[in-house]
Amino acid sequence: MSDHVYKLIEVVGSSTTSSDDAIRNAITKASESLDNVGWFEVQQTRGHVENGEIAHFQVIVKVGFRLD
Amino acid sequence: MSDHVYKLIEVVGSSTTSSDDAIRNAITKASESLDNVGWFEVQQTRGHVENGEIAHFQVIVKVGFRLD
Amino acid sequence: MSDHVYKLIEVVGSSTTSSDDAIRNAITKASESLDNVGWFEVQQTRGHVENGEIAHFQVIVKVGFRLD
Amino acid sequence: MSDHVYKLIEVVGSSTTSSDDAIRNAITKASESLDNVGWFEVQQTRGHVENGEIAHFQVIVKVGFRLD
Amino acid sequence: MSDHVYKLIEVVGSSTTSSDDAIRNAITKASESLDNVGWFEVQQTRGHVENGEIAHFQVIVKVGFRLD
Amino acid sequence: MSDHVYKLIEVVGSSTTSSDDAIRNAITKASESLDNVGWFEVQQTRGHVENGEIAHFQVIVKVGFRLD
Amino acid sequence: MSDHVYKLIEVVGSSTTSSDDAIRNAITKASESLDNVGWFEVQQTRGHVENGEIAHFQVIVKVGFRLD
Amino acid sequence: MSDHVYKLIEVVGSSTTSSDDAIRNAITKASESLDNVGWFEVQQTRGHVENGEIAHFQVIVKVGFRLD
Amino acid sequence: MSDHVYKLIEVVGSSTTSSDDAIRNAITKASESLDNVGWFEVQQTRGHVENGEIAHFQVIVKVGFRLD
Amino acid sequence: MSDHVYKLIEVVGSSTTSSDDAIRNAITKASESLDNVGWFEVQQTRGHVENGEIAHFQVIVKVGFRLD
Amino acid sequence: MSDHVYKLIEVVGSSTTSSDDAIRNAITKASESLDNVGWFEVQQTRGHVENGEIAHFQVIVKVGFRLD
Amino acid sequence: MSDHVYKLIEVVGSSTTSSDDAIRNAITKASESLDNVGWFEVQQTRGHVENGEIAHFQVIVKVGFRLD
Repeated sequence: MSDHVYKLIEVVGSSTTSSDDAIRNAITKASESLDNVGWFEVQQTRGHVENGEIAHFQVIVKVGFRLD
Repeated sequence: MSDHVYKLIEVVGSSTTSSDDAIRNAITKASESLDNVGWFEVQQTRGHVENGEIAHFQVIVKVGFRLD
Repeated sequence: MSDHVYKLIEVVGSSTTSSDDAIRNAITKASESLDNVGWFEVQQTRGHVENGEIAHFQVIVKVGFRLD
Repeated sequence: MSDHVYKLIEVVGSSTTSSDDAIRNAITKASESLDNVGWFEVQQTRGHVENGEIAHFQVIVKVGFRLD
Repeated sequence: MSDHVYKLIEVVGSSTTSSDDAIRNAITKASESLDNVGWFEVQQTRGHVENGEIAHFQVIVKVGFRLD
Repeated sequence: MSDHVYKLIEVVGSSTTSSDDAIRNAITKASESLDNVGWFEVQQTRGHVENGEIAHFQVIVKVGFRLD
Repeated sequence: MSDHVYKLIEVVGSSTTSSDDAIRNAITKASESLDNVGWFEVQQTRGHVENGEIAHFQVIVKVGFRLD
Repeated sequence: MSDHVYKLIEVVGSSTTSSDDAIRNAITKASESLDNVGWFEVQQTRGHVENGEIAHFQVIVKVGFRLD
Repeated sequence: MSDHVYKLIEVVGSSTTSSDDAIRNAITKASESLDNVGWFEVQQTRGHVENGEIAHFQVIVKVGFRLD
Repeated sequence: MSDHVYKLIEVVGSSTTSSDDAIRNAITKASESLDNVGWFEVQQTRGHVENGEIAHFQVIVKVGFRLD
Repeated sequence: MSDHVYKLIEVVGSSTTSSDDAIRNAITKASESLDNVGWFEVQQTRGHVENGEIAHFQVIVKVGFRLD
Repeated sequence: MSDHVYKLIEVVGSSTTSSDDAIRNAITKASESLDNVGWFEVQQTRGHVENGEIAHFQVIVKVGFRLD
């Protein structure tokens, strides 16, 4: 890791299933357009409710990747 | 969403199973007495430990609902 | 709980499976060397990504235990 | 103000016009059901965007009122 | 504590005497209308000054209670 | 909103007129290069002062948009 | 800006009209006794409510000025 | 309170006796050189320990006063 | 204080009497096993409520001590 | 600075030498692909340790640049 | 330190050389007009960039001094 | 990094020379009694001032190490 530079972007993943799955969806999407994704940090977990049940988990994550 | 007003309340759900389940329990309980629950935001995830194992997840959530 | 004193330590659990499992691993490890672990509070949820997938969830938790 | 007790609730006002107007709508709505509303504190200013323009300002305010 | 749900409200107690007394006044008032008050968390300690002396301590507390 | 992924960017709008106008300028600029801008969240309101008067309001906003 | 030193003070402006006007009043007052006021940063927006309407916006601003 | 402007300064009071007394000492000192002190907000409570006992409570308070 | 190194630990003191007493109990307990305790910083003040009255104040403090 | 719009990105610079050098590396890298970089704000300073010595300083900085 | 009262002011030092030097410049300037400066706390480290290089480090520091 | 558990402790390093050196002193001291120190995160940079000059930088760092 000699003097590399990394960039952090903020992405919101959503999932009807679980909060972990919302994170996974965010990582998968970010990795489609970025090489070298290395880590994530959860910023906020929230969600939408419909008819008294959780319709979607939404997780805001910072995603870090190495700049070549 | 023309000039609606919403209210946020803070609720703590608990679950012996998972942190997502603790959120679901909070939403279910809030929806018993409130119509129009629309979203939630996790404030803190914590829990009780007994005999070296997690006895309950406790998740503090803000729950938003539309005032008619 | 008459005038007991508690201590809080900060531990990072990791898991290839889920964020809840990372918390459980942190609690299990802390309980190996500490009696009287009573509660935890999640400080941050993060993780490592390899080849576009989550390799590990890492959860920083504060763990509280009673001093005898 | 001799030993009075106050309560704080959190309300989200929205407005198509301005952020100040969103606050006013929150205060007006809160005052419909509460006597003795005395002050507010802005928690967050946000809004919805449609077709590249702000459709609604949404302001989360804490509203304080005296309990009789 | 099997899967109970709790609610948190925010109350401001005041006292001419001490900051602890302001907390006590907040708890006493909250307990008049709520059963099952279980804990509090201080959010902010502030106060009014008149003629160079503290006229009132005001303490903002979150009060937690179990929903039946 | 089935499993969509969103991105958040941070933009600073400025205006000689008002803080709301600075937000509008940020949203307008962001929408020039981004489709599907959906919401914003104010991070900070600041400004420059010249000759004792506000020369520019500057508002830092997070802008959220859907990734296709 | 070669090695200048600046000072930040905290001022609360109020206005019956708008939150921006409360900021302007704070800046105007600060500029009466200070030369070289250069910028401001909003810390909190709050206000007083009377008879269900906003009586005053109050905005806490940090004001920066150059020390000669 | 028609369009008044207030200033906030930060003062640290200390006391060998109690945290409330440390606040009172800060207010008394601030009022020696300032007219119109109106309110305070506690920022941090800390203290020095000597020989296993609290030697001084130190409380950082913001003190607000009206500018004439 | 020439190049000394200090350690901070987090301790929760409780008291049936007062919040200051809860701090004192935390300091006393920490000093039983640590030499050179030098200062503390309050992190959070909370407590348990039973039958509408405060049963215990609980204060989370960081305690700093010099490493020899 | 008439109604310009700026963008903030988050970059992590690393350096084996110093924390300031880690900032410089982040700025240099960001400036390779961006014109008009105007300012930075340090978000966090951290680093890796190997064999009891600091192997790299890592500094997370927000970098602001003008959008044309 | 028997019942002394201290004041905290906020100062921004700048330096073309290093972030530590920006702190030193802030302390030197503050000490020109204040006796008894005792400590500082860094609030934020930022800076200006020109032509892809750091033109100035700017460090916001709180400076504490004893009131006689 | 398969399901390892890490611990975070908080240490304050001081130095008469520089803030980076204060961090190094903290790391060196922590590594004397801990194997497997892996990373640090700066929490706060502060210092003591004597006769208008910085006598010591003091940096509070969290230090992370792997539990075997």
